[in-house]
Amino acid sequence: MKILAIDTSNIPLSVAVLEDKTLLATMTTNIKKNHSITLMPAIADVMKLAGVKPAELDRIIVAQGPGSFTGLRIGVATAKTLAFALDCELVGVSSLELLAAGISDDKTDIVPLFDARRNHVFSGLYRNSNELINELPDQHRDLVAWLTELKERNQSQIFVGTDVDLFKPQIIDILGEQAYFPAPFLNVPQAFILGLIGKDKEPVEQETFIPNYLRLTQAESQWLETHSDKDHNTYVEKI
Amino acid sequence: MKILAIDTSNIPLSVAVLEDKTLLATMTTNIKKNHSITLMPAIADVMKLAGVKPAELDRIIVAQGPGSFTGLRIGVATAKTLAFALDCELVGVSSLELLAAGISDDKTDIVPLFDARRNHVFSGLYRNSNELINELPDQHRDLVAWLTELKERNQSQIFVGTDVDLFKPQIIDILGEQAYFPAPFLNVPQAFILGLIGKDKEPVEQETFIPNYLRLTQAESQWLETHSDKDHNTYVEKI
Repeated sequence: MKILAIDTSNIPLSVAVLEDKTLLATMTTNIKKNHSITLMPAIADVMKLAGVKPAELDRIIVAQGPGSFTGLRIGVATAKTLAFALDCELVGVSSLELLAAGISDDKTDIVPLFDARRNHVFSGLYRNSNELINELPDQHRDLVAWLTELKERNQSQIFVGTDVDLFKPQIIDILGEQAYFPAPFLNVPQAFILGLIGKDKEPVEQETFIPNYLRLTQAESQWLETHSDKDHNTYVEKI
Repeated sequence: MKILAIDTSNIPLSVAVLEDKTLLATMTTNIKKNHSITLMPAIADVMKLAGVKPAELDRIIVAQGPGSFTGLRIGVATAKTLAFALDCELVGVSSLELLAAGISDDKTDIVPLFDARRNHVFSGLYRNSNELINELPDQHRDLVAWLTELKERNQSQIFVGTDVDLFKPQIIDILGEQAYFPAPFLNVPQAFILGLIGKDKEPVEQETFIPNYLRLTQAESQWLETHSDKDHNTYVEKI
């Protein structure tokens, strides 16, 4: 199976082409760039390096969120468009699961984490025992409340992600020796790993596939404040 | 410190630009290509993605071997030339250490391995306890003799490298449950990891820096067969 894997959830951009579990080519950048400008040329470059033509692709795998609104929209829209145009399978993978999958230690909780601003984070809790298990779902949390909840598990916990450095003092302050940190190369999401996870997942229905933002946009929050109808699922239709 | 890291030791080609321990951009291919044609364009692309100009580089890090004769010559010659032209530091890292450094498990022997043809391998033995330690030096060995020596250590051993799959039946046959295999993404050398290892090493003297082939070329072996002088260090001068 020929696979294209794409992650633009946050600042890093990573693209890989795999044949089953074998990497053919990959490219990752980890600097603030405009993913809307850089993603398509990156895909074209990596496909060329891999020697794979678009029509040969069997499956597109995309990191579905959480992450930045803009990054997720670009990644998911590009993946959906390619899957539609090439008539191939589409698979979404949690952006947090992608980071967790780099950690092979089976004796610790794995806590992938992205900055969500205002001392909030996107995070979840995973364990890797033969296969990766999601123990606490991906969520948008106040950092202190989340760390306090983790503290109560009384388990060693490994924190992974490019934003972990930013929160390290708070993590250590609350969790002390319960907290561990991986080798630096594991903090950057790799589309190669995304491909390895996504190749065994069920394809989604393309028409209804959307990013997992895990929070409301500012526009949605403000609309809810001034509207009695609390069912925000109707927001898009009503506006 | 701005770093360019290059590995062309074997079939994979990996290039990365780092700023200290932070990845800026990286590219890896894992298909049979002519490194002499693809390496310089790959370096130019990754530098551009990273937004780093050649004159800004402080250090070039190259995988120094063992590996394929041609791959090592291309990587080392390119690294030396760039370091000379840009007047920056040059560092060599063992190609086997690069693979071993991806494994964070501190309870097993780490055995990186490349195919050296005719059922021979390049391999060595490492342990990762806080820092990576080389316990048995990189060497060119008959596979069965090497596995038999490893068996006698009576330790769990993790085998890492893109060629490990090829030898898996023999490894399991001799080592049984003593042998482990990592997540597939750890088998492909990453120049990002090369940069992380090499940033803390002492720079070499550029004029005398050569690849660690760990075996003689066929021409050298044949010359030794027909010449009484067994000091092969004089081979190049005499021919």
